[in-house]
Amino acid sequence: MTHECRARILLAAFGSFIIYTTFMDLLPRQIRCVIEELSKLPGIGPKSAERITFHLLRSRKASPESIGSALLALKENLSYCAHCQMITTGDLCAVCADRGRSTSTILVVEEPLDVIAFEKSGFKGTYHVLHGVLSPIDGMGPEQLKLRELIDRCRAGGVTEVIVATNLDVEGEATATFIRQELSSIVPRVTRLAHGLPRGADIEFADQVTLREAIAGRRDL
Amino acid sequence: MTHECRARILLAAFGSFIIYTTFMDLLPRQIRCVIEELSKLPGIGPKSAERITFHLLRSRKASPESIGSALLALKENLSYCAHCQMITTGDLCAVCADRGRSTSTILVVEEPLDVIAFEKSGFKGTYHVLHGVLSPIDGMGPEQLKLRELIDRCRAGGVTEVIVATNLDVEGEATATFIRQELSSIVPRVTRLAHGLPRGADIEFADQVTLREAIAGRRDL
Repeated sequence: MTHECRARILLAAFGSFIIYTTFMDLLPRQIRCVIEELSKLPGIGPKSAERITFHLLRSRKASPESIGSALLALKENLSYCAHCQMITTGDLCAVCADRGRSTSTILVVEEPLDVIAFEKSGFKGTYHVLHGVLSPIDGMGPEQLKLRELIDRCRAGGVTEVIVATNLDVEGEATATFIRQELSSIVPRVTRLAHGLPRGADIEFADQVTLREAIAGRRDL
Repeated sequence: MTHECRARILLAAFGSFIIYTTFMDLLPRQIRCVIEELSKLPGIGPKSAERITFHLLRSRKASPESIGSALLALKENLSYCAHCQMITTGDLCAVCADRGRSTSTILVVEEPLDVIAFEKSGFKGTYHVLHGVLSPIDGMGPEQLKLRELIDRCRAGGVTEVIVATNLDVEGEATATFIRQELSSIVPRVTRLAHGLPRGADIEFADQVTLREAIAGRRDL
């Protein structure tokens, strides 16, 4: 791409930005403000933000007031569970407060929603929520995660197995390796979720890495 | 589909709803409340709502407080322009307050955002915002639209042309026909936007109705 071509593209982009902001001034300030705030949310661009804002002005089902008050109250009294770091409003989360759960097995997950996914699967141990994964590019080191709390729980004794259930991407794998290194001398068994084909998979469409791992992890019939 | 099959599908759907709500109870009430409120917005399903909510709990760029206050202030002091029914905070909108605009031509649009689109195109007349289209299935009759105000403006005199710029779908066409019938005896000229191929169109991929209309509306070169 030549310099002239680049300069033209930049000028055109700047021009359309100026045109966009100039004509948006025709709308009242508070409407522009809501469009701007909604555009900051993940998966919502300026066009979706406009559509949602005008929907809110008209709709009888969704009102800006009820969403607004819900958002203002979002962080009120939120805290982390003293044991597993799940988001909760009390001292302990519902899982840790349940005396029927086995505390010898800890399932380590990235996010609070992962806990819900495993609860649906019928897991009966306890959890530990890291609130992120190791990702130097996003400024996420071991100190930004709830890793110290996990090591403290394991050091307190009574834990026979830690199952690492981070996502199967680069950051998740790096975090799993880091946790194994940190815990191998404290906990008898550190495991990782099985890799392989998901239930209902069509082998024809499975990717090569999954197939290789499914062969490597094969079991006797 | 047999009755038994239908009953099974219903039972499965009801079952997964019960499972969903039961396990979501593990999250604090205010988080569930935000997820539920966001799910009511157009284009946002339960999964997106969950993602946005947890993004808001962590993000430094988007805060639930700023979006919440923006939404609470959304409808404050909002009113309709006394002339064109555009959403505004004063008595008149910026277009109607501008004495340089021709008031003899009125461009009739469905929504406030349509005004912004026409302002970008350089239109120099005035507008009239209907705030909807005729759609009996959604309970939108002539009384729900700002049609009475349009007729009053035309009756007041000085209007030489009304350009109907509703969308080119069934409801938009029905509304255009209704407006023509209502105004034909009051205004010298009631027109509709040209139908045809949009700028940059590839004829190979144009739909048959557009091509038929482009032929019917052909002009001398």
